[in-house]
Amino acid sequence: MKTIGQLLDTYPVDLGHVDRKALEACIEQCFECAQACTACADACLSEQEVAQMVKCIRTDLDCADMCETAGRVLSRHTGYDANVTRATLEACAAVCKACADECERHTAHQHCQICAQACRRCETACRELIAALG
Amino acid sequence: MKTIGQLLDTYPVDLGHVDRKALEACIEQCFECAQACTACADACLSEQEVAQMVKCIRTDLDCADMCETAGRVLSRHTGYDANVTRATLEACAAVCKACADECERHTAHQHCQICAQACRRCETACRELIAALG
Amino acid sequence: MKTIGQLLDTYPVDLGHVDRKALEACIEQCFECAQACTACADACLSEQEVAQMVKCIRTDLDCADMCETAGRVLSRHTGYDANVTRATLEACAAVCKACADECERHTAHQHCQICAQACRRCETACRELIAALG
Amino acid sequence: MKTIGQLLDTYPVDLGHVDRKALEACIEQCFECAQACTACADACLSEQEVAQMVKCIRTDLDCADMCETAGRVLSRHTGYDANVTRATLEACAAVCKACADECERHTAHQHCQICAQACRRCETACRELIAALG
Repeated sequence: MKTIGQLLDTYPVDLGHVDRKALEACIEQCFECAQACTACADACLSEQEVAQMVKCIRTDLDCADMCETAGRVLSRHTGYDANVTRATLEACAAVCKACADECERHTAHQHCQICAQACRRCETACRELIAALG
Repeated sequence: MKTIGQLLDTYPVDLGHVDRKALEACIEQCFECAQACTACADACLSEQEVAQMVKCIRTDLDCADMCETAGRVLSRHTGYDANVTRATLEACAAVCKACADECERHTAHQHCQICAQACRRCETACRELIAALG
Repeated sequence: MKTIGQLLDTYPVDLGHVDRKALEACIEQCFECAQACTACADACLSEQEVAQMVKCIRTDLDCADMCETAGRVLSRHTGYDANVTRATLEACAAVCKACADECERHTAHQHCQICAQACRRCETACRELIAALG
Repeated sequence: MKTIGQLLDTYPVDLGHVDRKALEACIEQCFECAQACTACADACLSEQEVAQMVKCIRTDLDCADMCETAGRVLSRHTGYDANVTRATLEACAAVCKACADECERHTAHQHCQICAQACRRCETACRELIAALG
């Protein structure tokens, strides 16, 4: 998603309040994780033992929604409010952690492993951006 | 939105982990606030002095996204995870507070006052549900 | 959701391009259906015979997403574009129909029946608003 | 977003109903366009002449919502329904076209040009996938 960086580069005012690199990485991970969790929830639905996947599906759905919201909040810079950004990142990191923990348990399903990795990358990116907010 | 209660009443398993009344109220306020913030952002866009409304528009957009995510997370009960619910409610309360604070400043615009009230109701409903989680 | 009407009443410019009553009804049905489909998908996940509910869950998720998008598009009036409104309403009516058809098949599950009714009301509201667009 | 392809590769059942390459491209363009439109709407909000950007902001918001819904619908394969997929793609192509047309008018703003290109790529990817559906 090279447009993330291009749009940060062409922003009409200075983005002085944020670590540009950590911000770009976090936006990218949020959108990638939102898609991965949506796809993983659906792959779980198509598994023969779907009854064993219901908690995984539910957590995937929560994580897709929260990552999408975080990705949108982070894509906005007008009228920046550190409290909003921090609260959003804390929630996103918590939901990504819960989803990674759950997906990692399903070692037989490759889609869960791929999704778990996307969740961990997003959790890490959120925590690094929180740290960068100071 | 009477279907919120009907769907809680017909849920196939016991919802023992939550305060039913606080849950229903919070789901309703989240969806109502998501719509109100979407409409208020657009009403602000159509104000003549739109340049004075840009922070309000931005906060409305964040609040619409977060309320929608919270309303969805709260509508799910399978594989309940208190950490996910609490983190989501904390973020939603914080974003609703920020949006209510901003909307209340625009006393000349009735849509901002109506939206601020929806945000305050949603913030309160989130905090009451957090308290009920124990 | 009485704020829907209040926000239409306090809109800063004339909403001359739309049938006010059909618009308000459609926004309300979109948000109600989005919540109902989210809750029904989760109730299906908690059914013992979840394996028989996978198509229903999937259609519920699609319908929740599309209704939410339609509810948001209809809540905006600035820079009105009839092509965007019509295309969105057509898609929403199609997805609501598919979801109602699927939910109605699961006669043993009350949540599916309640959700099917919400989908039919939303489908009808979309088609009535399309007709009102002329 | 390499996880899109990885998750298609590890899907538990055959994806026989779709053109794999056109599907993957379309999912990617939907998520990229959703982010680009969210960022462009906010960049427009921070322009000095925001009053001239209100239609662009509104169309960006519609396009972000519809692309996100389309990206989610396309990420699901369980219980495939060609009518749902086609209606969603038609709506997404229409909204992307409207947004690209509007963004292209703002030649002085690079973010609008970058966003217009993302919208055109997404519109094209939707139309190619519609054609591939047969």
